[in-house]
Amino acid sequence: MAAEAFPTQNDHPQADAYAGDPVFDLHVGGKIEVISTVKVGDADDLSKAYTPGVARVCTAIARDPALVRRYTWKANTVAVITDGTAVLGLGDIGPEASLPVMEGKSLLFKEFGGVNSVPIALDCTDVDEFVETVVRLAPTFGGINLEDISAPRCFEIERRLKERLDIPVFHDDQHGTAVVVLAALRNALKLTGKSIESIRVVISGAGAAGVACARILLQAGVSDLAVVDSKGVLSKDRADLTPVKLSLANDTDGPSGRLVDALDGADVFIGVSGGTVPEDAVARMAEGAIIFALANPTPEVHPDIAHRYAAVVATGRSDFPNQINNVLAFPGIFRGAFDVDASRITEGMKLAAAEALAALIPDGELRADYIIPSPFDPRVATAVAAAVSAAAQADGVARA
Amino acid sequence: MAAEAFPTQNDHPQADAYAGDPVFDLHVGGKIEVISTVKVGDADDLSKAYTPGVARVCTAIARDPALVRRYTWKANTVAVITDGTAVLGLGDIGPEASLPVMEGKSLLFKEFGGVNSVPIALDCTDVDEFVETVVRLAPTFGGINLEDISAPRCFEIERRLKERLDIPVFHDDQHGTAVVVLAALRNALKLTGKSIESIRVVISGAGAAGVACARILLQAGVSDLAVVDSKGVLSKDRADLTPVKLSLANDTDGPSGRLVDALDGADVFIGVSGGTVPEDAVARMAEGAIIFALANPTPEVHPDIAHRYAAVVATGRSDFPNQINNVLAFPGIFRGAFDVDASRITEGMKLAAAEALAALIPDGELRADYIIPSPFDPRVATAVAAAVSAAAQADGVARA
Repeated sequence: MAAEAFPTQNDHPQADAYAGDPVFDLHVGGKIEVISTVKVGDADDLSKAYTPGVARVCTAIARDPALVRRYTWKANTVAVITDGTAVLGLGDIGPEASLPVMEGKSLLFKEFGGVNSVPIALDCTDVDEFVETVVRLAPTFGGINLEDISAPRCFEIERRLKERLDIPVFHDDQHGTAVVVLAALRNALKLTGKSIESIRVVISGAGAAGVACARILLQAGVSDLAVVDSKGVLSKDRADLTPVKLSLANDTDGPSGRLVDALDGADVFIGVSGGTVPEDAVARMAEGAIIFALANPTPEVHPDIAHRYAAVVATGRSDFPNQINNVLAFPGIFRGAFDVDASRITEGMKLAAAEALAALIPDGELRADYIIPSPFDPRVATAVAAAVSAAAQADGVARA
Repeated sequence: MAAEAFPTQNDHPQADAYAGDPVFDLHVGGKIEVISTVKVGDADDLSKAYTPGVARVCTAIARDPALVRRYTWKANTVAVITDGTAVLGLGDIGPEASLPVMEGKSLLFKEFGGVNSVPIALDCTDVDEFVETVVRLAPTFGGINLEDISAPRCFEIERRLKERLDIPVFHDDQHGTAVVVLAALRNALKLTGKSIESIRVVISGAGAAGVACARILLQAGVSDLAVVDSKGVLSKDRADLTPVKLSLANDTDGPSGRLVDALDGADVFIGVSGGTVPEDAVARMAEGAIIFALANPTPEVHPDIAHRYAAVVATGRSDFPNQINNVLAFPGIFRGAFDVDASRITEGMKLAAAEALAALIPDGELRADYIIPSPFDPRVATAVAAAVSAAAQADGVARA
């Protein structure tokens, strides 16, 4: 078709200081494209895919709105929406500079989950305006994946969008991380012979990932949990807590103190904060300790140090064993939600995703350096999707 | 990759009353998809396309925003945005029911222009809210194609978005139609030996297409023009005119009257209104009359009747000769604008597009039943794009 007459989007003439760098070269022209799934080779094709034929499809959907699921891309398409305020570890770099991450997310949705995904970087940091904007553009999409939005704004945005919309709304920085952490923790506990009800867990970081990890661990049965921010353990007696942190302080109900105090005798350390934990504090953790140091690129505890004191170590990096990577969760979670037309993502669906992910490694194969599958394990997304679909049915949020 | 493990989006289990209808069957699962343009087969690919590598690309764009053109899909991606208030001839059917048209537009952008396009149907009919919403989502896109928005709201929305944004904003129902009409008229006048300055033109319809056709014809040199709405010719003495219609009445400055009065002795009739023109009115047009009856599916004058009185006849239908089809314009116009990073679509760029389209048929090949190329003529988009790029340079709006 005529498109072939044009240079492809990866064939740009102008170069710059970054040309020749393999990472930048791979990004030239962007990493995704929109293509037609139908042939438009002659007037007859055109009259079916476009006017006049398309008018009959529009009329049918206007009469029976449920048909939009079958006759448009909506039911298999998620919007990846950000305001660019908390991009990776880079902070508030704005919507346009965030696009490479959002395009990356979109390509992973398709490659790993068979889900269409459109990056949308909004020039809009006011919570009310952000929520209204997403509600207005929602008719085009079957789900909303919120991405790289700063805390605590991200909590309020997600809460309000879940109230306003009848499609899945999922802040991946929170729940994707939490699901993979819980899956890895399940398998690490098997190796160390400890039960989730008996362990003391310390989470360093009370942003999007820290709060969501705390919430899913409480759901999963953890009873002794300390969440630490830059000022120390979240405790009821602190006057400086945001509503989200205060509610977490009430639900964890631990003593106040510093990170090093909390680590004394702890079974599990989960770092989602950046910063560095002093080795002498790590040394005071319990026997058979589990350390998930997830900061990128610099883990809170370097694996070489962590291994001196811990039985199981995981990081967020692909160059060490046990990478805690969100791509293990979000493609399968949306695949599973879309397959049953789920109206939302429930706590049950997230827990089921974690269980399915953990169960991919049978006891006989579990090792301290293999507690979580590789993102390239072809079983991952299908297993997560099946578990999420079943949980959606069980929770009564499946419409198909 | 894992995606292959999933049913394709065109493999839906459930059927309905429309199953078996070739038009509906073609629409199952939608007509477009988002795919990756880069390979993600192992951890090394992932570390380049996503974290940690992508962070360097984000940082580079944050430092030098111009790099977003080279290292993301933005510069070759247009948003097709509607509120579903004036979809084809169906009227206000809402955002979701409009999606099949928007998906069709998106596939035509790619197939004919090599341009990525994302349909966005907004649940938002207030002009202020619509404008704010489009401004907020603009960072992701290189251009905005407004579609199927009711008049007169569409005029105000386009005007304000052009003021607010530094990327092309183009309401195709207005300007796409106007460009193709002017191209067809140029060639029809060659056949009938009349000059554009000397003709009397009657446009039936003062909505998006009618107003834009009137404006481009005045730009192109037409001096005797009557625009007719449901109440008669737009004339200064009418008290019922919207600002847009009043301004057109002032610029055409004709006598008041009915459509049939205006047609008396007219050289050109352009129907963009629907409704039917009585044959006796058509009979009173000038010798060598030109009739463009563009209403779909029912032309204002049926070609069989038009041919009794007119030298050249065109319609909006693919099953008659001389189809006036916007797909002849919008893919090449955005291709040409994107190729030179145009900050807007100028009047000069639209006129150049019409000239290029008309010029594709040399005098030796011009016939009464061949005044405009077929949408499948592979020369169309490239010729339009080249002319539009050159006009953007000449008008000083090209940034690359």
